[in-house]
Amino acid sequence: MTSATMAANDLGAECLDLSRRARAAAGELAIAPTAIKDKWLAMAADALVSHGDEILSANALDVADAEKSGLSSAKIDRLRLTSSRLASAAEGLRAIAALPDPIGQFRESRVRPNGLVIHKVGVPLGVIFFIYESRPNVTLDAAALCIKSGNAVILRGGREAARSNRAIHRLLADSLSRSGLPADAVQLVTSADRSAVGHLLQMREYIDLAIPRGGEDLIRRVADEARMPVLKHYKGNCHVYVEKSADLERAETIVVNAKCQRPGVCNAAESLLVDSAVAGDFLPRVATALRSREVEIRGCPVTQAIIPECIAATEEDFAEEYLDLILSVKVVKDVHEAIAHINRYGSGHTDAIVTNDISAARLFTTTVDSSAVLVNASTRFNDGSELGLGAEIGISTDKFHARGPCGLLELTSYKYVIYGDGQIRG
Amino acid sequence: MTSATMAANDLGAECLDLSRRARAAAGELAIAPTAIKDKWLAMAADALVSHGDEILSANALDVADAEKSGLSSAKIDRLRLTSSRLASAAEGLRAIAALPDPIGQFRESRVRPNGLVIHKVGVPLGVIFFIYESRPNVTLDAAALCIKSGNAVILRGGREAARSNRAIHRLLADSLSRSGLPADAVQLVTSADRSAVGHLLQMREYIDLAIPRGGEDLIRRVADEARMPVLKHYKGNCHVYVEKSADLERAETIVVNAKCQRPGVCNAAESLLVDSAVAGDFLPRVATALRSREVEIRGCPVTQAIIPECIAATEEDFAEEYLDLILSVKVVKDVHEAIAHINRYGSGHTDAIVTNDISAARLFTTTVDSSAVLVNASTRFNDGSELGLGAEIGISTDKFHARGPCGLLELTSYKYVIYGDGQIRG
Repeated sequence: MTSATMAANDLGAECLDLSRRARAAAGELAIAPTAIKDKWLAMAADALVSHGDEILSANALDVADAEKSGLSSAKIDRLRLTSSRLASAAEGLRAIAALPDPIGQFRESRVRPNGLVIHKVGVPLGVIFFIYESRPNVTLDAAALCIKSGNAVILRGGREAARSNRAIHRLLADSLSRSGLPADAVQLVTSADRSAVGHLLQMREYIDLAIPRGGEDLIRRVADEARMPVLKHYKGNCHVYVEKSADLERAETIVVNAKCQRPGVCNAAESLLVDSAVAGDFLPRVATALRSREVEIRGCPVTQAIIPECIAATEEDFAEEYLDLILSVKVVKDVHEAIAHINRYGSGHTDAIVTNDISAARLFTTTVDSSAVLVNASTRFNDGSELGLGAEIGISTDKFHARGPCGLLELTSYKYVIYGDGQIRG
Repeated sequence: MTSATMAANDLGAECLDLSRRARAAAGELAIAPTAIKDKWLAMAADALVSHGDEILSANALDVADAEKSGLSSAKIDRLRLTSSRLASAAEGLRAIAALPDPIGQFRESRVRPNGLVIHKVGVPLGVIFFIYESRPNVTLDAAALCIKSGNAVILRGGREAARSNRAIHRLLADSLSRSGLPADAVQLVTSADRSAVGHLLQMREYIDLAIPRGGEDLIRRVADEARMPVLKHYKGNCHVYVEKSADLERAETIVVNAKCQRPGVCNAAESLLVDSAVAGDFLPRVATALRSREVEIRGCPVTQAIIPECIAATEEDFAEEYLDLILSVKVVKDVHEAIAHINRYGSGHTDAIVTNDISAARLFTTTVDSSAVLVNASTRFNDGSELGLGAEIGISTDKFHARGPCGLLELTSYKYVIYGDGQIRG
């Protein structure tokens, strides 16, 4: 056996051991009382504040390395932890403790004519493998959501945050033991070897769900390799469509908010569609507003004719998720063309119409095939906390299992619990 | 190019064309009004009765071939259609028409503090690929459930039922056209080449869900090859556990019903666990009752000591789905050993406890990890119609998306439809 094979086998064995321990912990966690899970969340929140220094020291080393390696300042900012960021992460854990526990809840109950009492009862999925990129506070959110929903979790964070994540994981595991939950319920893949992810994605006997969060490449790799279900969205190519009856001031506010309020996130708008009847009025004003926020506009020929300084949009532009201060713009004939464009170029994530026409709104919301469709509101609202689900572990653009923001409920399944008094089938 | 490659390419092209047409039909079907879908169901039901002769002639040829090829009489009986079976299939279609349409229903609605109105609205999954074995009436159920839930369906039935399925499909497609729905919404894979299934299982761009129904080999093949989600159960190794406080007469009735009422189906009991405290009283009486129904008992050593004529059960017996008049029996120390045995050897399908002890019932229902757990009732009740879901397309033992019987609701997803009046994120 070559040493490379041996190392691969060692890593495989390590991953197998880790996922088996997660499976065993999941069995305990599935029946853990809400009070114990909430106690853990409170203890972890307290520890984040009282032992924050250890995390901040580890994070400082990660940040120093990132600066040396020339990571962009936006990425370094996402990596950096501060006392106030830890305090707000602690608040996040307390907020998750305050959410209702989906496990053991009776989602539906009915009595059948023969007297059988049928309950549909919430149960955890089991073991969740969460693969994500740099932000270390995501480690806390993900662990908190998984445990509160009765699942064990295997965490694989970004390389840049390795030390930060190890320090956070130590704190979480310690709080688990102190609160009476299995420490193996939250595990961290520490091997620097990227093939650890590949090993774990094969282990469908032990891992029930993979959730990748990060760039499209990471997500495609996980979706292609995983032998278990994957909860994901590839990208968010979100549209705002300004219909001809729209209040143009409202439309301008919504477009600016959807594009500029946080351009690097998945529910930011990437493309603007404008009805030809109002393009002459609307495009110059929105272009001025966007230009003052340094947004680059890439337009169709009609758009270019109205806003002469705008760059020509290519076919690729309309499919692009810029995650940046760039917006593609197309003038469309009517709501039908807008819908067809969105269903062709969009990513099924989030799309909005600005309109005062009730028929256009109805047609748009029924036929745009996206996880969230909005009427007269910013695309930025497709978010677990904004929709009232509490925190989210990610957003799904799939239709199977869960669509849109995924919070505690979306990390669960159910079983039928049936009570009789001797019923048999005739 | 060899002629074999050409044929493979032709088949691939045919499958691609078929799945593309299904995707286009799904787009129309997603927004089809309930009234039109129900009209189709009524027309198809009428046609089954008025044009039943064509189906019965085709079926007679299938049955004749099956008899020649020496298919078992049980299988031939499942394959055979009669006027009365067609009439009852027509009633099945009318019953599905009478079920509420899950599409467009507001599953949840809430208003956020900022005035956003959030609706969670039922939508179809899209295109469903249904792969099943002989019974031709399943063709009707599956098509009806898929269309009523707004999905297009690609059907691949068993080879033995090829002519019957073609006749049924002609009738369904004709009714679709006459009711104003796209005929491509129900398509039948007619190629005798088994690799057609392999081609279609790769087409995740066009097919949203695969549902295999039949033997474990078929289901494993589909689950291994499919690049889209699969709704399935591998097998039903269902248990009845007689706890020491059980009413033994009730226990006997339940065991006999669970084992004998229809031994060839997935929710029939395959294994009996008996508390050691009552084994001496219970096993002889249940053995007598089972023997009078020609059930073969395969027991653990303690069972053999109590029922001397019973065969020794092997380790394999406890994992077996017999689908036949055979029952494995094991004496256990207590409810904990029963639960551990079920979670180890069971298939996560359906398990029942007979008990008068409320604590034992609670422990059993919370810790047995199966799609349905029953207290004092036969395992045979884990069925869509018995649980009040209406007809079912299958039973899932997975936790992702849907668990237990899958009816109309389980063939759907949802989207968020959000109404505002100019809200932006701050």
